Amino acid sequence: MAEAIASKQAQGQLKQLNAALSGGQFVSVRKLLLELPPSDVALILESSPSRTREELWNLIDGDFHGDILEELSEDVRNGIISRMMPANVVDALEEMDTDDLAETLSSLPDEVLQDILASMDAQDRLRAEQALSYGEETAGFIMNTDTITLRPDVSIDVVLRYIRLKGDLPENTDTLYVVNRNDILIGIVPVTRLLTADTQSKVSEVMDEEPEAIPDNMADDEVAGMFERYNWLSAPVVDAKHHLVGRITIDDVVDIIREDAEHSMMSMAGLDDEEDTFAPILQSTRRRSVWLALNLVTALLAAMVSDLFEAALSQLAVLAILNTIVPSMGGVAGNQTLTLVIRGMALGHVNTGNSRWIIGKELAIGFLNGVIWAVLIASVIALWKQDYVLGMIIAFAMMVNMIAAAFSGAFLPIIMKKLKIDPALAGSVILTTITDVVGIFAFLGTATLFLI
Amino acid sequence: MAEAIASKQAQGQLKQLNAALSGGQFVSVRKLLLELPPSDVALILESSPSRTREELWNLIDGDFHGDILEELSEDVRNGIISRMMPANVVDALEEMDTDDLAETLSSLPDEVLQDILASMDAQDRLRAEQALSYGEETAGFIMNTDTITLRPDVSIDVVLRYIRLKGDLPENTDTLYVVNRNDILIGIVPVTRLLTADTQSKVSEVMDEEPEAIPDNMADDEVAGMFERYNWLSAPVVDAKHHLVGRITIDDVVDIIREDAEHSMMSMAGLDDEEDTFAPILQSTRRRSVWLALNLVTALLAAMVSDLFEAALSQLAVLAILNTIVPSMGGVAGNQTLTLVIRGMALGHVNTGNSRWIIGKELAIGFLNGVIWAVLIASVIALWKQDYVLGMIIAFAMMVNMIAAAFSGAFLPIIMKKLKIDPALAGSVILTTITDVVGIFAFLGTATLFLI
Repeated sequence: MAEAIASKQAQGQLKQLNAALSGGQFVSVRKLLLELPPSDVALILESSPSRTREELWNLIDGDFHGDILEELSEDVRNGIISRMMPANVVDALEEMDTDDLAETLSSLPDEVLQDILASMDAQDRLRAEQALSYGEETAGFIMNTDTITLRPDVSIDVVLRYIRLKGDLPENTDTLYVVNRNDILIGIVPVTRLLTADTQSKVSEVMDEEPEAIPDNMADDEVAGMFERYNWLSAPVVDAKHHLVGRITIDDVVDIIREDAEHSMMSMAGLDDEEDTFAPILQSTRRRSVWLALNLVTALLAAMVSDLFEAALSQLAVLAILNTIVPSMGGVAGNQTLTLVIRGMALGHVNTGNSRWIIGKELAIGFLNGVIWAVLIASVIALWKQDYVLGMIIAFAMMVNMIAAAFSGAFLPIIMKKLKIDPALAGSVILTTITDVVGIFAFLGTATLFLI
Repeated sequence: MAEAIASKQAQGQLKQLNAALSGGQFVSVRKLLLELPPSDVALILESSPSRTREELWNLIDGDFHGDILEELSEDVRNGIISRMMPANVVDALEEMDTDDLAETLSSLPDEVLQDILASMDAQDRLRAEQALSYGEETAGFIMNTDTITLRPDVSIDVVLRYIRLKGDLPENTDTLYVVNRNDILIGIVPVTRLLTADTQSKVSEVMDEEPEAIPDNMADDEVAGMFERYNWLSAPVVDAKHHLVGRITIDDVVDIIREDAEHSMMSMAGLDDEEDTFAPILQSTRRRSVWLALNLVTALLAAMVSDLFEAALSQLAVLAILNTIVPSMGGVAGNQTLTLVIRGMALGHVNTGNSRWIIGKELAIGFLNGVIWAVLIASVIALWKQDYVLGMIIAFAMMVNMIAAAFSGAFLPIIMKKLKIDPALAGSVILTTITDVVGIFAFLGTATLFLI
């Protein structure tokens, strides 16, 4: 653990840096920053308010800018690049791998990107444009192009001599790829096999034939799913004609797996995946307001439904007091189903083949939940308000809303996925609207019938 | 893509299997299952209702049981093992790596585990007990013990001959470890370096000294964080005295990263991380009921607060109609802050050094949100209900609740983490209670003061 700092140490480091910064001891800040690996500097930048972040960035040696930019999250990176001189950005980008370059450039606001491309020389611009040529969130976008390729008819001995001559292999190389004269992928040779194979044998004799390869247009979350499922460390990427175009290594996939898993949680609260905890206040407020606006509409809708029962509410204040219980329980139960189905879809467990079965199961749970919580709430209300009829009414409403919640929680994500709407983003707000409206209608409607 | 099936193909496969199963064509089911890699069979089992799952399991060749069990999620695996004969389980476990063995055994219900241990011979039992000797969720628990170790004074040539003699290396070996005569880790040699190093040089001359090593008692999510941050593919594990005890490879870490990221989302809906989408109805209902019970208490608490204002509610039905808007907006805004802070803590961005800054920032956003939504709701109510005083009252309540929401959303997870309570699990229910109570008090209280 010579260089690496775990999060606890990072806290100490951060405090030390902050103390040095606010004390104006820029020399010692610069020294502290130089001693840390890029990923730790990135963590410190991500853990700092935007003003401190800017001060720190200016104290970092320009030679390390590229390495640190690679490690930063999108939001933080864009903020820093937007304030750099385009020429300095170009210098920082020069050392980046293709996949990091593609990610960095593609997330920039268009005017910043144009400025940077304009500052590049012809060769760099060509490389940048190639990196950007694949659609975002595809295998081609996240791949690296630094593959080592072999011909099938050379001997292992020759391969070993070639590697020894070359001196080193690209980072995280665990597999060499075998292509024919048309650059079509025909096999793979794990690096470890070079150590155990007979040096006289030919590459074609020791390679694994018909290797699994990833099409360059495959969605990146599907790529991540395959890495996870088959425990790959790397995989070749091929174009439509099976030409080898690059390789994807697991360290790139790890980021996608985390983002993918976080996406649902962040979306369900109406937050952007890349939302920076330390973004300026106005920016954060603006971003979160869309979700709050949507929720205001939902809340007003629920109020309007209650408004239909004004007569009942003005006659019996107890209805007003109990009016929130049924919608609230429906919202929570529906949200459980929704979360489970969204996760099931992300893991590939929920699909068209079994969606009917799942809706059926969730309906059964909704019915059971309805019975349990109806009995419970009826007993509470009967005891608290000494009113058995009111207890029966709220029990009936609970029953209805629990079933509606289960149905919506299971059906909404399935139908939304078919309509290509992200269920994590819009599912919960629609679900809450349904459970609010159904809950209020069922409770106040039944009460109006029997009590007014 | 010769063998692998992506999720879309899995659907087709699943349909074919189901058709064959329900048609009683067990021979073709068995054949279909034999053709698939274990991870795909696992996915199919996880995507099947429990009865189908059992039928399929009985049709799978016993030789593959171990490989498939390794790939299953905890809930599904436990269900299957509980219904197997202990002797068959022992056979299936024999081929497992130490880390998979530890995970499988530790998650079993105690009586099942005892049955299985009792059916083992002495050697297997020793291995099982060793695997279980590390605490769950530690580095020692997830490590593998199949390391290849070298002595510093041998030559690369000898190492190469040794490997060639051995014939193959353990799965996912990218690094060899150098230990002294006391088994203390003193260096590492990447496999690729064996290909490029001078064969006459000694191991000590080509090894990386003072390698970063993971203490065997480090928490597994911290291990995952280090792999993610430093882009490792594998890392050595050492005990307190720096003896090499095993290695962790990234494919084991990937599962932890996903589980870790999913944990928050599942917890926030009151679900168990490992909750099986296809679990029996009664089991699912029972598991989810704790959360619903908690929410019923919250909802009743909110109703009791409203009950305090019965006089106001019975005089003015409009208060009943609008009573849900302020609590609802507070809940949503508070949940955004909570989600962001929980994610920030998981990523290591939020720590004691900057928590005060974050609470300050969120309070500022809460204040801004308060102003924005207060003005908006006041205008809506003034227009809808033609009542300016009511508009002012709800605006004031909105203001108060938005600030309370921001404060609770930022403060709760920070204080809960200090108290070692999981904020993802309990945070949102406490938050909702606060925003409900504050929202109702602020709205009905102010209304009672000015309107009654």
